[in-house]
Amino acid sequence: MEYQYVRLANEIEGKVASGSLVVGEKLPSLRRIKEQKRLSLSTVYQAYVELENRGVIEARSKSGFYVRPQMKKLLPLPAAGQFFLKPLKVKVNTLAGVLQNLFDHPEMIPFSAAVPGPELLPVKQLSKMAREIGATYLFRAGGTGYGSPAGQPELQKQIARHLDWYDAFSGEEIIITCGCMDAINLCLRAVASPGDIILVESPTFLCYLQLIEDLNMRVLELPADPVSGLDLDMLARTVEEHDVRAVLLNSNFPNPLGYRVSGEKKQEMVRMICGRGIPIIEDDLYGDLYFGETRPTTMKQFDEQGLVLYCSSFSKTLLPDFRVGWVVPGRFKEKVKRLKFNSMIATSKLNQLIIAGFMEAGAYDRHLRIMRTSLKSQVATMTRAVANAFPADTRMSSPEGGLVLWVELNRGIDSLQLFTRAAEVGISILPGAVCSGSGQYQHCIRLNCGVAWSPVMSAGVETLGRLIGELLP
Amino acid sequence: MEYQYVRLANEIEGKVASGSLVVGEKLPSLRRIKEQKRLSLSTVYQAYVELENRGVIEARSKSGFYVRPQMKKLLPLPAAGQFFLKPLKVKVNTLAGVLQNLFDHPEMIPFSAAVPGPELLPVKQLSKMAREIGATYLFRAGGTGYGSPAGQPELQKQIARHLDWYDAFSGEEIIITCGCMDAINLCLRAVASPGDIILVESPTFLCYLQLIEDLNMRVLELPADPVSGLDLDMLARTVEEHDVRAVLLNSNFPNPLGYRVSGEKKQEMVRMICGRGIPIIEDDLYGDLYFGETRPTTMKQFDEQGLVLYCSSFSKTLLPDFRVGWVVPGRFKEKVKRLKFNSMIATSKLNQLIIAGFMEAGAYDRHLRIMRTSLKSQVATMTRAVANAFPADTRMSSPEGGLVLWVELNRGIDSLQLFTRAAEVGISILPGAVCSGSGQYQHCIRLNCGVAWSPVMSAGVETLGRLIGELLP
Repeated sequence: MEYQYVRLANEIEGKVASGSLVVGEKLPSLRRIKEQKRLSLSTVYQAYVELENRGVIEARSKSGFYVRPQMKKLLPLPAAGQFFLKPLKVKVNTLAGVLQNLFDHPEMIPFSAAVPGPELLPVKQLSKMAREIGATYLFRAGGTGYGSPAGQPELQKQIARHLDWYDAFSGEEIIITCGCMDAINLCLRAVASPGDIILVESPTFLCYLQLIEDLNMRVLELPADPVSGLDLDMLARTVEEHDVRAVLLNSNFPNPLGYRVSGEKKQEMVRMICGRGIPIIEDDLYGDLYFGETRPTTMKQFDEQGLVLYCSSFSKTLLPDFRVGWVVPGRFKEKVKRLKFNSMIATSKLNQLIIAGFMEAGAYDRHLRIMRTSLKSQVATMTRAVANAFPADTRMSSPEGGLVLWVELNRGIDSLQLFTRAAEVGISILPGAVCSGSGQYQHCIRLNCGVAWSPVMSAGVETLGRLIGELLP
Repeated sequence: MEYQYVRLANEIEGKVASGSLVVGEKLPSLRRIKEQKRLSLSTVYQAYVELENRGVIEARSKSGFYVRPQMKKLLPLPAAGQFFLKPLKVKVNTLAGVLQNLFDHPEMIPFSAAVPGPELLPVKQLSKMAREIGATYLFRAGGTGYGSPAGQPELQKQIARHLDWYDAFSGEEIIITCGCMDAINLCLRAVASPGDIILVESPTFLCYLQLIEDLNMRVLELPADPVSGLDLDMLARTVEEHDVRAVLLNSNFPNPLGYRVSGEKKQEMVRMICGRGIPIIEDDLYGDLYFGETRPTTMKQFDEQGLVLYCSSFSKTLLPDFRVGWVVPGRFKEKVKRLKFNSMIATSKLNQLIIAGFMEAGAYDRHLRIMRTSLKSQVATMTRAVANAFPADTRMSSPEGGLVLWVELNRGIDSLQLFTRAAEVGISILPGAVCSGSGQYQHCIRLNCGVAWSPVMSAGVETLGRLIGELLP
């Protein structure tokens, strides 16, 4: 027989899991629940204590109980990766080719690609703006022609205004690109050549490795700790001992680990890397998706030499499909602009103007505030769901921003095998094998938390847990 | 004193020049003019004979007088270029950088970039479609997410249907790109590596050279005759004697010369080049803009080995801004698709769906028919204007399609100097120096005829003629 307080606790946890109670939301008072449920006050109190013990809610003194944002203690953190001393020729494309085809199957449970679901996006407002801009922009002077290779001034201006943490450049320093990967591609080509060594962290973003492979550059992977990120001493030694041509990393909530780097550490990293004349390609794609109180700093803020090429996009925060990103290339501006022009003339004006219009209306900041709350809640829900459904020896990241979870499974699990089994039952995941050229994350997976929680998602996690159990040695 | 018939002839030529009488249009009967103008029949007849002598109109037996499309005899053709035996390391980017900035100044008289003016484009219909798609597409399943790296099936299908000259592939063989340059960039990267030799014709399209320079490949320029194009014997010798890694060319109405290549010759070229295992990157950007009766063939039609990578786009025929092109990569499909994904995930769905909707409504073919007539007329008008305004030793191409004219000036003219002088008075032209790495077209310029004729355009040509006169040695 189930205790009444356990039943109540389960019911409330279910509401959190399903999203009907969101992170940060205050729970009804003990008295209110007592009356609603016709239970004794002590039963309700016991249920709340139970939920507190489970890590679902927290008491705030003289205020009441709230849904907890971070589930830090649910599962231990994954181990940091191994350090490989030699730069590697990357070879992830063959494997990644298999995954790429999943993009063609939107009917799968979407745990692989790091994308926000439509529920998180201001679809109605964007659609309204698309209709308005679509109806007018071609009739403007020069409306039909190629836009400027650097992008539309309207959008450059809005982005410059959005980057209020950095007031040292005007919109003219910004070059608009077809999403962040286009920006990174241009930056890599601007600062490095085939054969050059690019330093990335490990585990890293699959597409970095694919791109570096395509450009015939080599990669040097520096292991990152799931909480503290890169080790500064190890970084110093690496840039001293190796002929690193450029550093490429997410400065905030890196994909897949999601940790936060302090401003002091960023400053030290910039000093260490740029001080040796090495450019940093800073990908701040997730910087606006912070779970804490304030927006984290960027490396660009500490860049005194114009050696930080700051890249970002609207793909994770507004609309993946628009393919609009940007780069502030510092001293590489003319070269990046030229490469942009030569490889595709310009980015389409239509999408740029839609976003500029949306931002000009002040809608972007408002949207980001809501989106951050939802994401934080979804990550917490997924964290709890994984903790419940996966085997007890699972380890898991505790991201402080962004939209993915990094999950370390029993070392006997081959995540590629899991990937195949999961795909067969309609679930897509990202196997850790593609997050490094070193082969050391074969037993890890990355889970996307960007899509709104639902019974389907919940069942997906449970199924994954069952499949992992079956694959255990 | 001016003869009456000369005055009448001038008046009619003025109407042709201003576009109020278009190419192919039947002139009023002698009797009608006689009555309208209160002139004698013989005066009107003399005026028509005069116009015939000037090359403005032509008599068709038992039918009357018509505005002539081609002004072949107005000026002699330019000379074919020199053959440089050595592959060159390309260095056009510095120079081109100067020109690139002109894209930022839409208020100039637009003789440089090869773009159609808004008057030639179905702006209203496209805008209506943009409004409709903008209002709906984000609400579709998967609407907000990244599209397939290969493109939207709706557009692939419409393009496959449009390519009715070639029925051997389905839409699935088509990869949608951000315009034709993106397609060519992907193709070059798919088939060649840094240091490799790319064969192009000379003079060629500036952006080919810039791209090849960016990719650290080398270029081998084969001179093309303004009428007959490449010499087959010279081509055979070149692919035999040099380690050519790929051939990159406009198969129809090449930019800047605009000549037409017969199907037999194309077939022979494919046999010659692909027979040696060398891929052809076929850029058919202008194939739909023919001035003759029928659409010319493509090299892809004669490709039996999957070695022709067929590229094209909607930038010259529908809307430069949409940045939507495509490639049928043959046996390089997987590699091109992968490079596309890795460098920018996918092309934005919005623009693809607008074009697909426009094509599905049958509007594209109708639009192309009208556009061809206008372009043919504009090229003829520009030809006549140049013949009137430029010095007598000017030579000029006689394009059979496309939208540019190639003009060879006195060898004493430095077209870069002309470029600068013209820019000062608000006229943009393309100096021939950037159409080759060999430095042999310093005295040539390319003129865009894509923008509707107007008094401003007419005055622009006259001003150019005056500037050239001033620069003559």
